[in-house]
Amino acid sequence: MPIIHVHLIEGRSIEQKRAMVEKVTQAVCETVNVTPEHVKIIMHDMAKHDYATAGVLKSDEQK
Amino acid sequence: MPIIHVHLIEGRSIEQKRAMVEKVTQAVCETVNVTPEHVKIIMHDMAKHDYATAGVLKSDEQK
Amino acid sequence: MPIIHVHLIEGRSIEQKRAMVEKVTQAVCETVNVTPEHVKIIMHDMAKHDYATAGVLKSDEQK
Amino acid sequence: MPIIHVHLIEGRSIEQKRAMVEKVTQAVCETVNVTPEHVKIIMHDMAKHDYATAGVLKSDEQK
Amino acid sequence: MPIIHVHLIEGRSIEQKRAMVEKVTQAVCETVNVTPEHVKIIMHDMAKHDYATAGVLKSDEQK
Amino acid sequence: MPIIHVHLIEGRSIEQKRAMVEKVTQAVCETVNVTPEHVKIIMHDMAKHDYATAGVLKSDEQK
Repeated sequence: MPIIHVHLIEGRSIEQKRAMVEKVTQAVCETVNVTPEHVKIIMHDMAKHDYATAGVLKSDEQK
Repeated sequence: MPIIHVHLIEGRSIEQKRAMVEKVTQAVCETVNVTPEHVKIIMHDMAKHDYATAGVLKSDEQK
Repeated sequence: MPIIHVHLIEGRSIEQKRAMVEKVTQAVCETVNVTPEHVKIIMHDMAKHDYATAGVLKSDEQK
Repeated sequence: MPIIHVHLIEGRSIEQKRAMVEKVTQAVCETVNVTPEHVKIIMHDMAKHDYATAGVLKSDEQK
Repeated sequence: MPIIHVHLIEGRSIEQKRAMVEKVTQAVCETVNVTPEHVKIIMHDMAKHDYATAGVLKSDEQK
Repeated sequence: MPIIHVHLIEGRSIEQKRAMVEKVTQAVCETVNVTPEHVKIIMHDMAKHDYATAGVLKSDEQK
């Protein structure tokens, strides 16, 4: 029953997400004593203009 | 003031969402003693590659 | 797989929560075509000093 | 480390979001004693058919 | 209808929260064209052992 | 900048949470190409009467 929400800047491929949910599920099962079928992961993509640190949009940051 | 977030696999029609918010609001009002205008519902569609159970993306599940 | 978060002002009894999750689950199943075992509901109690409307804490509102 | 999620009806411009994150970050820093680089804001746009009050979708409301 | 969730490390006083919701509501109203009564803010306190950066619990960080 | 919320049934020790955030952070960094200091994890404990599956509170389930 762990419910996990992951908020990521957009641009990850489905391959990356597939790998991430597999490894995060393993990490949770090994450490908090649950079985995999109880681990639910929801991913939320964020546009770069929908995330800010220090009051500055990610899309406005200088590289 | 109940604030409700509903995360659904994408593909529900507006008619289904209209019916859902009406019935969920009734269910909440009848059981926890609030008036309808205080019930706020936010729906979040999830792509099938953005939801995983047991470490497997919904889009990869065998039917 | 609907995942539902309900944020409520604290003070509801377990009997009220039991009734709410039963009726909300029914409402969701009837309207968006899912089976009950896929409906997960997480309730979050809010203290009155942790919720605000119009810039005023619930605990400061005039009755 | 304040993590802030803002759920908004869709339609705000990037200029409005840029101004909002700047001013909200200032407001948080002035009042709860954190430095700007610790304030993270995630914005979530909601379609009008994904938000309901009193059991009615925003897209169905009479103006 | 902006719905705002603020996740804060525990320890802020009610006075700080009162000031924060007042100023954040003003900031949102000035920038995204909403009226104050539509701004709802939910605050969530986090224990220091319930927040991590870089894989380290806040309660374990060296000062 | 991945922001991760983990909702867990209450009862995990700080040792379990410490191990979980370490391993989940590694899993995310290896798979979606971010550095550890950008991974923020917020844990939310749920009482057994605040989580339901199939319309039944966790605290009411038969073992």
